[in-house]
Amino acid sequence: MAKELTSRSENYSQWYIDLVLKADLAENSAVRGCMVIKPYGYAIWEKMQAQLDKMFKDTGHVNAYFPLFIPKSFFSKEAAHVEGFAKECAVVTHYRLKNDAEGKGVVVDPEARLEEELIIRPTSETIIWNTYRNWIQSHRDLPILINQWGNVVRWEMRTRLFLRTAEFLWQEGHTAHATRREAMDETVKMIDVYGDFAEGFMAMPVIKGVKSENERFAGALETYTIEALMQDGKALQSGTSHFLGQNFAKAFDVQFANKEGELEYVWATSWGVSTRLIGALIMAHSDDNGLVLPPKLAPIQVVIVPIYKKAEELALISEKADEMMSKLKARGITVKFDDNDNKKPGWKFAEYELKGVPVRLAMGPRDLANGTIELARRDTLEKQVVSVNNIEEVVENLLDEIQNNIYRKALNFRNENIRKADTWEEFKQILAQSGGFISAHWDGTAETEQRIKEESKATIRCIPLESQPEEGKCIYSGKPSSQRVLFAVAY
Amino acid sequence: MAKELTSRSENYSQWYIDLVLKADLAENSAVRGCMVIKPYGYAIWEKMQAQLDKMFKDTGHVNAYFPLFIPKSFFSKEAAHVEGFAKECAVVTHYRLKNDAEGKGVVVDPEARLEEELIIRPTSETIIWNTYRNWIQSHRDLPILINQWGNVVRWEMRTRLFLRTAEFLWQEGHTAHATRREAMDETVKMIDVYGDFAEGFMAMPVIKGVKSENERFAGALETYTIEALMQDGKALQSGTSHFLGQNFAKAFDVQFANKEGELEYVWATSWGVSTRLIGALIMAHSDDNGLVLPPKLAPIQVVIVPIYKKAEELALISEKADEMMSKLKARGITVKFDDNDNKKPGWKFAEYELKGVPVRLAMGPRDLANGTIELARRDTLEKQVVSVNNIEEVVENLLDEIQNNIYRKALNFRNENIRKADTWEEFKQILAQSGGFISAHWDGTAETEQRIKEESKATIRCIPLESQPEEGKCIYSGKPSSQRVLFAVAY
Repeated sequence: MAKELTSRSENYSQWYIDLVLKADLAENSAVRGCMVIKPYGYAIWEKMQAQLDKMFKDTGHVNAYFPLFIPKSFFSKEAAHVEGFAKECAVVTHYRLKNDAEGKGVVVDPEARLEEELIIRPTSETIIWNTYRNWIQSHRDLPILINQWGNVVRWEMRTRLFLRTAEFLWQEGHTAHATRREAMDETVKMIDVYGDFAEGFMAMPVIKGVKSENERFAGALETYTIEALMQDGKALQSGTSHFLGQNFAKAFDVQFANKEGELEYVWATSWGVSTRLIGALIMAHSDDNGLVLPPKLAPIQVVIVPIYKKAEELALISEKADEMMSKLKARGITVKFDDNDNKKPGWKFAEYELKGVPVRLAMGPRDLANGTIELARRDTLEKQVVSVNNIEEVVENLLDEIQNNIYRKALNFRNENIRKADTWEEFKQILAQSGGFISAHWDGTAETEQRIKEESKATIRCIPLESQPEEGKCIYSGKPSSQRVLFAVAY
Repeated sequence: MAKELTSRSENYSQWYIDLVLKADLAENSAVRGCMVIKPYGYAIWEKMQAQLDKMFKDTGHVNAYFPLFIPKSFFSKEAAHVEGFAKECAVVTHYRLKNDAEGKGVVVDPEARLEEELIIRPTSETIIWNTYRNWIQSHRDLPILINQWGNVVRWEMRTRLFLRTAEFLWQEGHTAHATRREAMDETVKMIDVYGDFAEGFMAMPVIKGVKSENERFAGALETYTIEALMQDGKALQSGTSHFLGQNFAKAFDVQFANKEGELEYVWATSWGVSTRLIGALIMAHSDDNGLVLPPKLAPIQVVIVPIYKKAEELALISEKADEMMSKLKARGITVKFDDNDNKKPGWKFAEYELKGVPVRLAMGPRDLANGTIELARRDTLEKQVVSVNNIEEVVENLLDEIQNNIYRKALNFRNENIRKADTWEEFKQILAQSGGFISAHWDGTAETEQRIKEESKATIRCIPLESQPEEGKCIYSGKPSSQRVLFAVAY
């Protein structure tokens, strides 16, 4: 088979790239660090978007759109934010090209220099809070619960399809509140929405927690995160929700009159997930045969492949397939009948395995005679012959089962890969042997965290929300600690 | 009322701006020429997107995503295209900022200059055809039927909310075909889709036609357009579909092996509509009281306003409203119950008129006692008292009637404003007196078209697809002409 993948055990990183390319999800473009998201990959993003958008709206949010460009001076207004975001970014300095005097195509017109450079948004807090200033006067104007779907650019030096690209697609929520409490509730609500999406739709178990100061969003007082574990034992930050306090309101002078008529600064949150989730989805479930997609996000949930030699056979199978398709579609199941005559069934089987289609149905003349059909599930690769009569019910149940099975499998893997370390030696040994999450005591200082990172490449992924207080000693410094935190090497 | 609009007769242009701002559709941002699309305006765009996306998918298209950036050299590859698009555009020259040595915020790092400048896409033919080169080898790889939703930037000097902005949101279809015929069919198919959308959903009649050479898309062999008429007698180009021939395939060397194994250049189309359609929608139907939205694109189709003095009255009305809402929602109707206690019913009535909500229901204690409700339609401002019993059926039918009525009204206006001119004097007189479309003979030369434009500001909007051959003389040059074309002053 031409599309064979590197196996995960041989080279996990190459397996990932092979899979992204061969399953037609995305590819590198002619522009350094920017990807082309191909139709099949984009269809997964559309499924994710539709579900997330619904969840955002169900929690009272509305969409809006703010400019791609941010005036350079906006970044300097919030001290921590400028350090984190205003460095590696795309800078627009001119607004016109002209014909080269020597006839060599087009050149930048030096006379069309912008007075102030514009930055392509790496995230939109600054332009949005500059806008909110005009929208908020009174407590009656609050809360503002806005989300934006769009593209952002961060000039990353080392890029990797979906996981880290210079331009990526994402959503960013930006909310404004009258009280600290309300903003804090919103921050937590949205990390819960992300958690529900990851587990319920991506079938990817996540650990919710807060970030250490080092790993916090630039400008946030607290960053909540969902952390997932990939099959190679590395963690992947899959979504974050930030409690921004009054930092941006102060930077952009956004005040409101409270019920007593006194002016107060507005409280803020922001939260986002990106096309990085597609990378997470791939790495969480897929195998050496290709993608394994959870049915709830699979662009094609069921494929029907006819097995035939003669045209009359195909005609009869097609008729039966049409019938099955209407029944499946009536239950909201996405189904494709692949009667492409240029490809053999074996090729198609491999192709749909590569593409992660959860259920494959194959029907030949003998099936037709017997009223049966061969059913194969992608997650376990098991096959069985079933009656064609109530196929829609069988398939519907099977899709649920696959969704649950993929989740269970990932959950077991994740749980088996959370290990406690009580000494620095143990810590390093676990990292070297198996990776995964390490639950360990930490003295709470940025210095220790930094040294651990330098010596082991592991970072604090989060301080889990569900962790219990426990007295102990920091694995690195030996200083006292009151709870374990989760470390891992991360994407 | 605080939100009074300038009337259309007083100052149409100011009326438009007032309406966009006061109905909370959009506003100018801190970045010159870029708008903020506010939630209510964005909700209209989402409705448009959802419908168009469905129509694109129903005609076999899939979505994908290509980079925001285009290497400067790509523009020079297609001779006509570079003239049209590589001039007024945003140019990225650097990829890093650094702290100012004198402590004045951040400055562009001169060491982070890009080897080749990147242009923010004004349209994506070049980057897409550069990508298609790797996707297309054989006739089996064709057709490619891809659409992209995204943002583009054209550095316009004179901008106007929705109608002409530096950054705007749009979709751009880019298809690749094995034959001229197939590409031509696709070009026409998509202008038909746009026409169906404009008329069937926006309730905006359009004239389909082809552009004269002057007005053609830069790089196209033929540009199809839908042209609508605004209430001030100006035309608005609402969507275009381009037959690109083999121009981009030749520029980017995209060839395929045909069934005989011979190499041929690929045939191309591109087509797009943008947030400009929101401007068209506003100007086609709205009045001095505010927006008039066709029900099929209205974010809120029905609003229920309770009229009450005491809390017990509100409680009883709310109960009845809940019942009505479930019935309306069951029919797929979007309904809002506005029980905001801070605003009086009169204020709410004016507000929903301003926002163009097609149907308003008002219910007071007497209605409750009588089993009636007051129903007001936004298009005609007529009110009637109806029985509350089968309200869902009444409303459903009324929404259809409003959709049709808005269309009919716009169609009558448009038809009344197509006038024939047979002399240059007549032509100028019509423009001065009434505007609208002028059907006139033209000698077919770019020079004449250019002179007419300079002297009258009117341009050829299109050569209508449905126009009949007719011998005549050019209104400007007196030279022979074989058919009438449509002129107008345009947005």
